[in-house]
Amino acid sequence: MKYDRIYNFSAGPATMPVEVLEEIAAEVLNYKGSGMGVMEMSHRSKVFQTIVDEAEADLRELMGIPDNYKVLFIQGGATLQFAMIPMNLMKNGVADYIVTGGWSKKAYSEAKKYGKINLVATSEDRNYCYIPDLSDLPISEDADYVYICENETIHGTTYHKLPNTKGKPLVSDQSSMFLSRPCNVSDYGMIYAGVQKNVGPAGMVVAIIREDLIRSDLASKIPTYCRYDTHAENGSMYNTPNCWAIYVCGKVFKYLKSIGGLAEMERRNEEKAAVLYDYLDASKLFYGTVDKQDRSLMNVPFITGDKEKDAEVVAATKAAGFENLKGHKSVGGLRASIYNAMPKEGVEALVAFLKEYEANH
Amino acid sequence: MKYDRIYNFSAGPATMPVEVLEEIAAEVLNYKGSGMGVMEMSHRSKVFQTIVDEAEADLRELMGIPDNYKVLFIQGGATLQFAMIPMNLMKNGVADYIVTGGWSKKAYSEAKKYGKINLVATSEDRNYCYIPDLSDLPISEDADYVYICENETIHGTTYHKLPNTKGKPLVSDQSSMFLSRPCNVSDYGMIYAGVQKNVGPAGMVVAIIREDLIRSDLASKIPTYCRYDTHAENGSMYNTPNCWAIYVCGKVFKYLKSIGGLAEMERRNEEKAAVLYDYLDASKLFYGTVDKQDRSLMNVPFITGDKEKDAEVVAATKAAGFENLKGHKSVGGLRASIYNAMPKEGVEALVAFLKEYEANH
Repeated sequence: MKYDRIYNFSAGPATMPVEVLEEIAAEVLNYKGSGMGVMEMSHRSKVFQTIVDEAEADLRELMGIPDNYKVLFIQGGATLQFAMIPMNLMKNGVADYIVTGGWSKKAYSEAKKYGKINLVATSEDRNYCYIPDLSDLPISEDADYVYICENETIHGTTYHKLPNTKGKPLVSDQSSMFLSRPCNVSDYGMIYAGVQKNVGPAGMVVAIIREDLIRSDLASKIPTYCRYDTHAENGSMYNTPNCWAIYVCGKVFKYLKSIGGLAEMERRNEEKAAVLYDYLDASKLFYGTVDKQDRSLMNVPFITGDKEKDAEVVAATKAAGFENLKGHKSVGGLRASIYNAMPKEGVEALVAFLKEYEANH
Repeated sequence: MKYDRIYNFSAGPATMPVEVLEEIAAEVLNYKGSGMGVMEMSHRSKVFQTIVDEAEADLRELMGIPDNYKVLFIQGGATLQFAMIPMNLMKNGVADYIVTGGWSKKAYSEAKKYGKINLVATSEDRNYCYIPDLSDLPISEDADYVYICENETIHGTTYHKLPNTKGKPLVSDQSSMFLSRPCNVSDYGMIYAGVQKNVGPAGMVVAIIREDLIRSDLASKIPTYCRYDTHAENGSMYNTPNCWAIYVCGKVFKYLKSIGGLAEMERRNEEKAAVLYDYLDASKLFYGTVDKQDRSLMNVPFITGDKEKDAEVVAATKAAGFENLKGHKSVGGLRASIYNAMPKEGVEALVAFLKEYEANH
C-alpha cells in the first residue's frame, strides 16, 4: 500500500484517512503560510480561532446540529465525562442508566458516586451480546436524564433504535460510532464522543449539549474544568484546549463533507460491514457474537468457539499484515474495528484471508 | 528562514525545535515501519508502549528524577491540576499558597473550594513584578503542602531560590519554565507542567509526584479521572491518554538530551535572555517590568510607559514578521516569550529591530 501502510483494525486510536494525514504532514512546519505549525500557535491567535470556528461550523453542518445546542471540545476522554455528566446534569440527583456493555457499565459505576442511579435495563445476562427491548422502560419520574452507550466498542452492539425515555433527556456516548451515520441531534439532550475512535487523535471529547441542560447553579466543589458552563461560556477556550486534536478533527470533518456527508458515510459503512458479516454468517469456522439485529457497523467481534484456535487465527492475521484483530478479553476471539476510515478494500482483504484460512484449517 | 518559518514569540503554545518537527512530519503516515501513524495506534500496542516508556525514561534521565517519584501524563491542563492538587493532596484540609501572578492566583482561587487555603505571601502590591522574601513565611503547622508557580508566564517572574517551606511538601507549577534549567526534584513534593509552553503540543500535563503523596484513601466523590492514584497505578493509561502529546514530548526530551541536557539548555537560555535584557537595560525607550533579581529567562515583559506607543511597537513588530509580541492585558506593553526552542538568532533579530525602532522614534 501507499507509504507502506497496513490495514489497521484497532478499536481506537484507529486508522485515519490517508488524504487527511497527507495534508497534516505537509503542514507540520508551516500551516498555510502562517510561518509556524499548528502545535506552535497561540490558541488566542486569529489563525487558530479560524481553525476552531471552521471545525465547529463543519461539524454543525455535517450533523445538522440545531442552534440551541453547544458544541464543546473537552479533554479527559469519556472517562472524565462519566463523572462530568452526573455532576453537571443532575438536579434531582437521580438518573437512569441502560447498561449494554463495558463502557456503559463504567459510566454507570462512576455515576453512582454522585446520586441515585437506577439501572433500568441491561443485557449482562448474555454477556452484552444484544440491546434489550427499550420501548417501555421503568423510567424514574424524577430522572434528570437517561444514559446510553450507543455503540459498545468491546461487545460490538449498536442501538438501531433509541430508547423511549418518556420525555427525559437522552445522553449518549457515541464514541465508537460518531459520524458513522446521520444523527437526529434533537432526539438527544447530549451526545458526546471521544474522538480517538472514528475521527482523530486521542485526548479530546466532542460534547454536543442542549443549552438548557448547561447549568450555572452547580455545587461549588465541582472543579472549574469539570463544569460544562466553563467550556460553553468560553468557546471551549477557558484554558488551552487540545489544539492539535481540534485541528485534525476539523480536517476529518471537511473530508467527510467532501465525500458527501454522513448519508454517504453510512452507505459506505453498511456496504463495508456487509462484506464481513456476510462472510461470518456463511462461515463454518467463525461466527459473530452479537445478535444480528443489534450488530455494530463499526466493531465486529467474532470467534471460533475454541480459545486456542482463536489465538492461532489472531497470530496468523498479524503475520499476514493485519494489525489489532485480537478481541477484548471480556469477549475473546477476534474483533475487527472497521471505522469510517477503514477502506472497503481492507475488509475485503481480511475476508479473503479468513476464507483461505478456513479452507486450509 | 527554512520552510518560510517566522520568529514566534508566543507565550504558549509556542515555537518548537525545527529538528523535532521535521521528524514528526516524516512519520505522520508511517511511524518507523509500523504501517501506521502515531495518531492511529492503539494505546495498548507494543509500539506505542515503547513510545511512552522511552518518553518517561528520557525525562527521568534529563531531570534526574528519583525512583520514589511517579511521572504521570494527564489531560486537562494546569486548570484541572488547580483542582486535583487540593482534592488529592489535602489530608488536613489546609494548604499554604504563595501568589506571585495570574497563574498562582488562579490556582489559589480554585483551591479555596476544597479546604482552608492560606495566602502566606503575595506580590500583588506591585502588580506581581517581583518574588517576595520567602525565607521565613508563616507556614501553617497543619499545611498539607505549600504551593508556588515557579515562573509566571504573564508577569515574567521566576523563583531563583525556592521558598523555605519548613518541611512541608512544595508543589510547583513549572509550566512556563519546565526543562529550561536543571532542577533538583527532591526539593519538591510535586512538580507539574502544562507541556504547551516549553515542550510540545497543548492538551497534556506532566506531573512528577512523590509516591507517598499519592493517596488511595480519598473521598469517594472525586472523579476517577481526577485521582493521582488512578493514573499512577495504570502507567498513565487508565484511559486513552493524549498519545500524540506523549509522542511529541518524547521527541523533545530526546532532542534536549542530544544537545547536552538541561545544563546546556540553561546556558543557552541565559545567553539568549541576556541579549534582550541587556538591550532593555540600556534602552531609553523600553524598560523591563520585573525587578532584576526575579526576572524570568522565559517570558520577558517590557513597556515604553505609554500605552499608545506600546501598541505602535507591537504593530511594527508584527509588520516586520515577529509574531505574538503583544503583552498580556494585565501588564500591557510587549512580552517576548523566549522558550527553549527560540533560537538566539530570533532574539538577536528582535533586538536589532527594536534598536532600529528606537533610533527612528
